[in-house]
Amino acid sequence: MSDSGLAVTGTVVTPIAFPDPPLLNSSGVHEPWALRTIVEVRTGDGLVGLGETYGDAAHLSLVQTAAAAMVGLDPFDLNGLTRRIAAALGEVDAPDAHGLTGGSSPQKTLARVVSPFEVACLDLQGRATGRPLHAILGGKVRDAVPYSAYLFYKWGAHPRAEPDAYGEAVDPAGIVAQAQKMCADYGFRSIKLKGGVFPPEDEVAAIRALREAFPDHPLRLDPNTAWTVETSVKVAEATDGLLEYLEDPTPGIPGMAEVAARAPMPLATNMCVVSFADIPEAFALGSVGVVLSDHHYWGGLRASQRLAGICDTYGVGLSMHSNSHLGISLAAMTHLAAASPTLSYACDTHTPWQLGVDVVSPGVLRFVDGSVPVPDGPGLGVELDRDALARMHEAYLACGIRQRDDTGYYRRFHPDYVRRLPRW
Amino acid sequence: MSDSGLAVTGTVVTPIAFPDPPLLNSSGVHEPWALRTIVEVRTGDGLVGLGETYGDAAHLSLVQTAAAAMVGLDPFDLNGLTRRIAAALGEVDAPDAHGLTGGSSPQKTLARVVSPFEVACLDLQGRATGRPLHAILGGKVRDAVPYSAYLFYKWGAHPRAEPDAYGEAVDPAGIVAQAQKMCADYGFRSIKLKGGVFPPEDEVAAIRALREAFPDHPLRLDPNTAWTVETSVKVAEATDGLLEYLEDPTPGIPGMAEVAARAPMPLATNMCVVSFADIPEAFALGSVGVVLSDHHYWGGLRASQRLAGICDTYGVGLSMHSNSHLGISLAAMTHLAAASPTLSYACDTHTPWQLGVDVVSPGVLRFVDGSVPVPDGPGLGVELDRDALARMHEAYLACGIRQRDDTGYYRRFHPDYVRRLPRW
Repeated sequence: MSDSGLAVTGTVVTPIAFPDPPLLNSSGVHEPWALRTIVEVRTGDGLVGLGETYGDAAHLSLVQTAAAAMVGLDPFDLNGLTRRIAAALGEVDAPDAHGLTGGSSPQKTLARVVSPFEVACLDLQGRATGRPLHAILGGKVRDAVPYSAYLFYKWGAHPRAEPDAYGEAVDPAGIVAQAQKMCADYGFRSIKLKGGVFPPEDEVAAIRALREAFPDHPLRLDPNTAWTVETSVKVAEATDGLLEYLEDPTPGIPGMAEVAARAPMPLATNMCVVSFADIPEAFALGSVGVVLSDHHYWGGLRASQRLAGICDTYGVGLSMHSNSHLGISLAAMTHLAAASPTLSYACDTHTPWQLGVDVVSPGVLRFVDGSVPVPDGPGLGVELDRDALARMHEAYLACGIRQRDDTGYYRRFHPDYVRRLPRW
Repeated sequence: MSDSGLAVTGTVVTPIAFPDPPLLNSSGVHEPWALRTIVEVRTGDGLVGLGETYGDAAHLSLVQTAAAAMVGLDPFDLNGLTRRIAAALGEVDAPDAHGLTGGSSPQKTLARVVSPFEVACLDLQGRATGRPLHAILGGKVRDAVPYSAYLFYKWGAHPRAEPDAYGEAVDPAGIVAQAQKMCADYGFRSIKLKGGVFPPEDEVAAIRALREAFPDHPLRLDPNTAWTVETSVKVAEATDGLLEYLEDPTPGIPGMAEVAARAPMPLATNMCVVSFADIPEAFALGSVGVVLSDHHYWGGLRASQRLAGICDTYGVGLSMHSNSHLGISLAAMTHLAAASPTLSYACDTHTPWQLGVDVVSPGVLRFVDGSVPVPDGPGLGVELDRDALARMHEAYLACGIRQRDDTGYYRRFHPDYVRRLPRW
């Protein structure tokens, strides 16, 4: 490999869409299409590094701006990457359209835009040196990364569409059935329920039903800040002994601290601590016992390692968050988790909700007993399926969705719905 | 490069000694010989990675134990490196003999032993991929790394020996003369005075004299915890406007916090915050405004980057500490500093006190206007001078010193001397 040959010669940014089931959450319901953006970073040597990020229009536009700043960059120069993108973007604050990953700031916006390029550069580092990404990240400490079954309350089908393979889940029996199918198909050994959809007592009932059906699986409940402090404490007491952690019960660092002080289990978060700037106050107040890292908005894999180091230093646990994603992100999450000694929980993943659709060629990523065996090919170890990419880009162009809007979509069918957090 | 070819086939550990001037500090005086240990990690491909660490006998013995655990390791597998060495050492606590880098713990002992091997592995990563170490560490953000003139009160010569080029410095005039020579020879743009040797008012007078002679050079004073809280506050008030930071005036995290609350300038430390376990309490109490990182006891270059990330997150400044060292360490410090965006102070170095002696071949490391241009060869960019290594190993065998003992050496000439911290 020569230095000049590895320099970036061009970057391709492709927005795509893929079918998403009607998954319910505290903001509404998933639309029929989920958006992502695929980033390909190409070098003079003909190598291609891959990254995957959000697909909302405002974010996509920033990613395109950033892509134009990549030419000439050495993929090893991650400091230069951040500097170039920061200069290209200027100070800009593009909030997450859906608000499910916490507050927004210029730093978080920059981190979200840097992330897919950083992953692509690390992928290139691995490809250029013939090493898997986990080796670039410090070496794998596990051969397979455990993920959790990520359960959702859901409709049986999008209105006027065919039911999906999972069917409806609007009560404890439906949730247990969903868990049984997902655990049978993937072998998951721990279970997370996305809550904040039905009154808390109904969701507690679902957790009790899961515990009965799965006596040994660690359980988690995540209402996405749907509850007040008092409701959160009541749910925490009602689920004492049932949950390994309770995730984002209530909004805000002070509110989480109040709940944490009275809850018997640790609180986890991907909404209260979402950037480095949140850490000092939240850790000082004891707001969270577990941070769910997410390289998509923490700024990439090295930034996620920095976060892991801070959590370890402060005695705060580490788990991993997931939005709807495809195989590039699953590979990146798996390599990162494989190289993270202090990650002590199964990671979240939306993979089952892709229903078999992916942008990477099949064969590398698979689930064995709920875990993904860590790819050992160079870099991420996955390759773009260019036919799938083209199809999914066509779907993006055709679907009409340009910004995730769970609330607006839900209101189409329930016009009196108002997003309110906390609701109970 | 093949995976198996890059695996470690053997490690050579060589204790060495080199002449050290009679530099005074709060524990006594430097002995005529400084000890270091040179680590060479060899791979099947014939590459050699270099590391440099302390030379005290207890530490050397642990380094030798660790070296035996290296065979078969992939130099990219830094997690595996730590795991292997931790297993080889077991839980052991070997305090710094001289006590000038703060308290001791099993974690810090492990970090000290891991460090030279981690540097050697990163050197190998660079050599194997044809990239300078700064690229492996994330890319250089500066082309040259500024260092500070590191002034010491000193005797003109070791008893019964020839005077060195710097001569005696026991008062403000001597310190200013030393600074003038050192700044003329190296071009340093900032100045640190090692204090804790004479009564505080004398050292404040030296700072005033330095300010007069060097109106634009940032100044630092480091008495190595020689002062009580009250004395520290008095010195801080007396040097208001003169110091960019005051380093380790008093022992302990609570004592530093008391001084920090009343001092007009930031406090810096390499004695109060010396391992990740110290950080939460010290940062919560506001004990320090600047951490002087040192890869030799923080556990290597990646661990130093983790420390930098924590400091940045908590709004704590970052500078770099130095003990007596040679060119391998200077190269490692320079690459790390080059790749550290948040390092905002000139680094410390003992290089002038080597008086031209080194274990690396000349030509790569040099000072231009007080800064070391960042080497751009593969890895550390420096090569062992094997003749020098042999000579310095002979010196180690002959010198009779096996553990740094500034206090014992000082007592030979001042039998009534008692090490007392704080003294004033």
